[in-house]
Amino acid sequence: MVRIAVLGCGRIGQMHAANVARHPRASLAMVYDIDAAAAEAVAEREGARAMASAEEVLASPEVDAVLIASATPTHAEYIEMAVEAGKPALCEKPIHLDLARVEACRARIAGSSVPVQIGFNRRFDPGHRAARNAVLAGEIGDLHQVIITSRDPELPPRGYLEDAGGLLRDMTIHDFDLARYMLGEEPVEVFAVAGALIDPVLMGELDEIDTAMIVMRTASGMQCHINNSRTAVYGYDQRIELMGTKGMVQSGNRKPHEMRRYSAESIEGAEPYLFFFIERYTEAFMAEIDAFVDAIETGEQPEVSFEDGRRALILAEAAYKSLSEKRLVQVSEIA
Amino acid sequence: MVRIAVLGCGRIGQMHAANVARHPRASLAMVYDIDAAAAEAVAEREGARAMASAEEVLASPEVDAVLIASATPTHAEYIEMAVEAGKPALCEKPIHLDLARVEACRARIAGSSVPVQIGFNRRFDPGHRAARNAVLAGEIGDLHQVIITSRDPELPPRGYLEDAGGLLRDMTIHDFDLARYMLGEEPVEVFAVAGALIDPVLMGELDEIDTAMIVMRTASGMQCHINNSRTAVYGYDQRIELMGTKGMVQSGNRKPHEMRRYSAESIEGAEPYLFFFIERYTEAFMAEIDAFVDAIETGEQPEVSFEDGRRALILAEAAYKSLSEKRLVQVSEIA
Amino acid sequence: MVRIAVLGCGRIGQMHAANVARHPRASLAMVYDIDAAAAEAVAEREGARAMASAEEVLASPEVDAVLIASATPTHAEYIEMAVEAGKPALCEKPIHLDLARVEACRARIAGSSVPVQIGFNRRFDPGHRAARNAVLAGEIGDLHQVIITSRDPELPPRGYLEDAGGLLRDMTIHDFDLARYMLGEEPVEVFAVAGALIDPVLMGELDEIDTAMIVMRTASGMQCHINNSRTAVYGYDQRIELMGTKGMVQSGNRKPHEMRRYSAESIEGAEPYLFFFIERYTEAFMAEIDAFVDAIETGEQPEVSFEDGRRALILAEAAYKSLSEKRLVQVSEIA
Amino acid sequence: MVRIAVLGCGRIGQMHAANVARHPRASLAMVYDIDAAAAEAVAEREGARAMASAEEVLASPEVDAVLIASATPTHAEYIEMAVEAGKPALCEKPIHLDLARVEACRARIAGSSVPVQIGFNRRFDPGHRAARNAVLAGEIGDLHQVIITSRDPELPPRGYLEDAGGLLRDMTIHDFDLARYMLGEEPVEVFAVAGALIDPVLMGELDEIDTAMIVMRTASGMQCHINNSRTAVYGYDQRIELMGTKGMVQSGNRKPHEMRRYSAESIEGAEPYLFFFIERYTEAFMAEIDAFVDAIETGEQPEVSFEDGRRALILAEAAYKSLSEKRLVQVSEIA
Repeated sequence: MVRIAVLGCGRIGQMHAANVARHPRASLAMVYDIDAAAAEAVAEREGARAMASAEEVLASPEVDAVLIASATPTHAEYIEMAVEAGKPALCEKPIHLDLARVEACRARIAGSSVPVQIGFNRRFDPGHRAARNAVLAGEIGDLHQVIITSRDPELPPRGYLEDAGGLLRDMTIHDFDLARYMLGEEPVEVFAVAGALIDPVLMGELDEIDTAMIVMRTASGMQCHINNSRTAVYGYDQRIELMGTKGMVQSGNRKPHEMRRYSAESIEGAEPYLFFFIERYTEAFMAEIDAFVDAIETGEQPEVSFEDGRRALILAEAAYKSLSEKRLVQVSEIA
Repeated sequence: MVRIAVLGCGRIGQMHAANVARHPRASLAMVYDIDAAAAEAVAEREGARAMASAEEVLASPEVDAVLIASATPTHAEYIEMAVEAGKPALCEKPIHLDLARVEACRARIAGSSVPVQIGFNRRFDPGHRAARNAVLAGEIGDLHQVIITSRDPELPPRGYLEDAGGLLRDMTIHDFDLARYMLGEEPVEVFAVAGALIDPVLMGELDEIDTAMIVMRTASGMQCHINNSRTAVYGYDQRIELMGTKGMVQSGNRKPHEMRRYSAESIEGAEPYLFFFIERYTEAFMAEIDAFVDAIETGEQPEVSFEDGRRALILAEAAYKSLSEKRLVQVSEIA
Repeated sequence: MVRIAVLGCGRIGQMHAANVARHPRASLAMVYDIDAAAAEAVAEREGARAMASAEEVLASPEVDAVLIASATPTHAEYIEMAVEAGKPALCEKPIHLDLARVEACRARIAGSSVPVQIGFNRRFDPGHRAARNAVLAGEIGDLHQVIITSRDPELPPRGYLEDAGGLLRDMTIHDFDLARYMLGEEPVEVFAVAGALIDPVLMGELDEIDTAMIVMRTASGMQCHINNSRTAVYGYDQRIELMGTKGMVQSGNRKPHEMRRYSAESIEGAEPYLFFFIERYTEAFMAEIDAFVDAIETGEQPEVSFEDGRRALILAEAAYKSLSEKRLVQVSEIA
Repeated sequence: MVRIAVLGCGRIGQMHAANVARHPRASLAMVYDIDAAAAEAVAEREGARAMASAEEVLASPEVDAVLIASATPTHAEYIEMAVEAGKPALCEKPIHLDLARVEACRARIAGSSVPVQIGFNRRFDPGHRAARNAVLAGEIGDLHQVIITSRDPELPPRGYLEDAGGLLRDMTIHDFDLARYMLGEEPVEVFAVAGALIDPVLMGELDEIDTAMIVMRTASGMQCHINNSRTAVYGYDQRIELMGTKGMVQSGNRKPHEMRRYSAESIEGAEPYLFFFIERYTEAFMAEIDAFVDAIETGEQPEVSFEDGRRALILAEAAYKSLSEKRLVQVSEIA
């Protein structure tokens, strides 16, 4: 049993803490949050200890690894601290909103073999993974086009948006990672259009966008399209389509159950899709912990690495440059 | 080009006349209806001649074959006349509501090689046929269970019901034929339950039923279930399920188009199924003509024979006996 | 937190023990199995105590309720012991294979208000429940037909079959309960056909059947069809269809994920359905514990009562009588 | 009955001739093809007269309107001739591969009220039209994103490609029209990526592309994505997705029938989609004739006008400019 500490006890930290506590090869050793009461509550519920600081957690011999689910500005620092303490880290995305800080962190941990995993949970979704595996198995021949649909069920609260770093760094970053995972090759060109279509007033005040379309191309010519919206009233919409010379695979949405209605007005209608990521990606979040436990046990670098976190942010930066300059951007212009 | 005459210019006769007129290897030579104006209208629309009697049609050297779509009580007689005239006949189901009359007709045409086809159109539905072909190709291994769902969109008018001969002879007869086609073997036992659930008052007045469930078994042990209803508000419901040792195939309903809706209340909802048999079985009715033209051209007995019409009626009689005696009936008790 | 003991640590007992341990309002206090090592293993894994006998468990003041997942012949006795000890019981189906023993148990516990729940987990499936709720909400108008498809993925081992009490008591009993739940009214007539189609040799040796079709009718005329097979190579097949005057609802199967393939041979193909009941009914088993915890907390009789267990067995007996006498059986002939 | 002549008796001309001949309010008066034998064959099959020249057709008092299905270079000239002769014209797309010629034609027919319809058949697809109607009915609220998937089943022959004018003018032009139809507003910005992924050698020889992705934006900010491929082994892939504030609608592909397979390897698999446009858009081609007959009868301009043909070509030109200059192009740069 590997002993894992969770840093950050907000919504996603609580979910991770519960998943760690339930994992057959892991135990939840400690939790920490800047809000001591929040940490206490999680500790009590999951049977773990609440600690007074991240430093204390990382210094403890009773912790084998950390899961970083604290506020985004703390991610890079906690990664550095974990690596220095020799403790494998699983860090929620993004590493940092500022690419320069990511590069500094990268330099700081360069040469270390301590496993660092980034929380791109969607790669672990059984359907998405089966789609990628179908490509690897040659089922669809040469991959030509990747289409990623990614829409949140509703606008997050204003406070969230103020700190989130912008749609492309906060939300699309998952899709940039998925695109790289599905393509199996780096995009070299990025073009983006975006707008404030859902709530133009709020977006105007925040200098934010709520709806976007992106096109990317890899060096070998594969094409990728991402579309995003902050509001999908029919439920969290997460679809992937991979098209190749021998066929296509699609990974679609999960419904809460398999009941369908037939009436004089409509047939085959079902309940709206699962509301949001915690419901939709339940299995993926658990499999992510699984991969992290593997990395802790083997000492090997995880499949979803620090470099993956960095590359996804570089694509977000390229997309922002495309938006602001209204032109096709070479990824090499960013890094 | 084979020259076909259509006897009967009601709703289904009109449809057949148009299909014959459009068929690449057939022409619509003549039409006849007891209502001369109805025949004239079809003749004019389709570019055919309206004739004064069935006898005149069958005596004409300009007619190679007849399609019998007149009122049910005339079917057996017209079949006999056609066979005697040496003209292949495609006759709408049922041959007759009275099994004794069917047996007499059978005796009368025995020994003749003139092709006689019965209008069990559903066998020609591309999906249903593909399902049967999958069984023949061994795709599902040994067939164990056949489930047929067959529901009309709405109650027919009272006048129709008064002449129709009862649900099991009028509507289920198609399903009895499909069951035999799908099973590839004769049912030997029949059990039925039925009721007047949709319009008990009208059904009571007509001594009729509107909802039924049937179970049959073949000599080798295959099981078959049919369920019927005279009202399916979501559209004409025509489904077949074939279950075997190596898998299952299902043939389902057609939608008018492939548009689906996603809202906060319901996802993936589509328009109700195609309303009724003329829309749902468009391709099947055309393929039925195709098979008839083949039979005319080759002189061979068609796949859907007089005997198929007789056997389906025998199953209906067995089911009625099961209903009235509230017991399992051996088909051998009927014929 | 209610303290629950699990009696029986076989496959389903282990699943229940884990579910109880994970339940937010319950704790797993103790476990017992006739095989002490099995109990020890579960106790260790779930953090509970292994006890030496069912008597010891029921006598303990540290146990509020028991979940009976032991061998079928012990069920009735354990229910009686639990009721006498004043401890609510959730008992796996069937209560007993012998209806006389069920009646004796019923007499013995008559008058007691101790909650006794029977483990008809399928009622708790979110899709099945949504279907029933749609009926209750009037969405499909008057219910006319219920169709239940229930097929196991593969034949159980011979040893299981030897003790299982026969297909209709072991497997169909779930469907009899679901039928009663969906109909909202007691079936009064039962007709069954069955056969040994999958493995005639083994079935012959065991005097057992592996494939069945049943038709039932309620006093008000509603019709219900159940079809069963012990082998569905495409996965555990669990479907319900409810047809009424205003529409239809269907509750279907769960797939392991939502990936679909498109090739030159086939489109929209997905992975076979979830293999068996533990995977398919994960949420249902958890919701069943939820209902049991409610009953323990409130002291009220649970939705799925002892009487439900008894009525399902009566229907199984009626179906066996129908099979052996090859006729329609009135449920009143049984009890 | 309006009397229509068909100019051009190739594959699509033959289809149109048959559709006209079958239309209840139209008759096929004459046909013409540069290949007299081809015209004779169609004339004989459909019961029409084969004429010696387009001039002769247009001069005939026995023709009310013309359907132009001849080689692309003749389209503009035939439109001009028809308008001058006062005969409504339905012209296959594109009007011309050279925008300058389109502009000249436009100037030439300016001021005439003779109906001119362009053959963008897809607008008439029942599913696509239902999707647009759902937007117009307010069902999905404000439209934000349009996604068009349009993939041909296989590469056309080299000869076809040599004359087709390039993927964006030949194939995507349909999607540009659909995009305008669905958006209900003109795109003002166009960005395209494309490549030769399917057959790089052939594409290299022809200076052609076989795979493309396009993003467009309208003045009000709506976003539109089109993806194209010249090869989809699973069948002609024609999908539309419209996403708005209150929901989404999708119009999908038609299958040849509704049979699905379930095995130990795959469930719910169906036959590949209908092969190509003549099969997929059967109803759309017929409804297009319907609209044309309406225009002939009323003398009003049809819904799909010359201007629609021109605007689609302008978008194709903008997309080519985007490809060659690797940048976002303003539609106003073209026209």
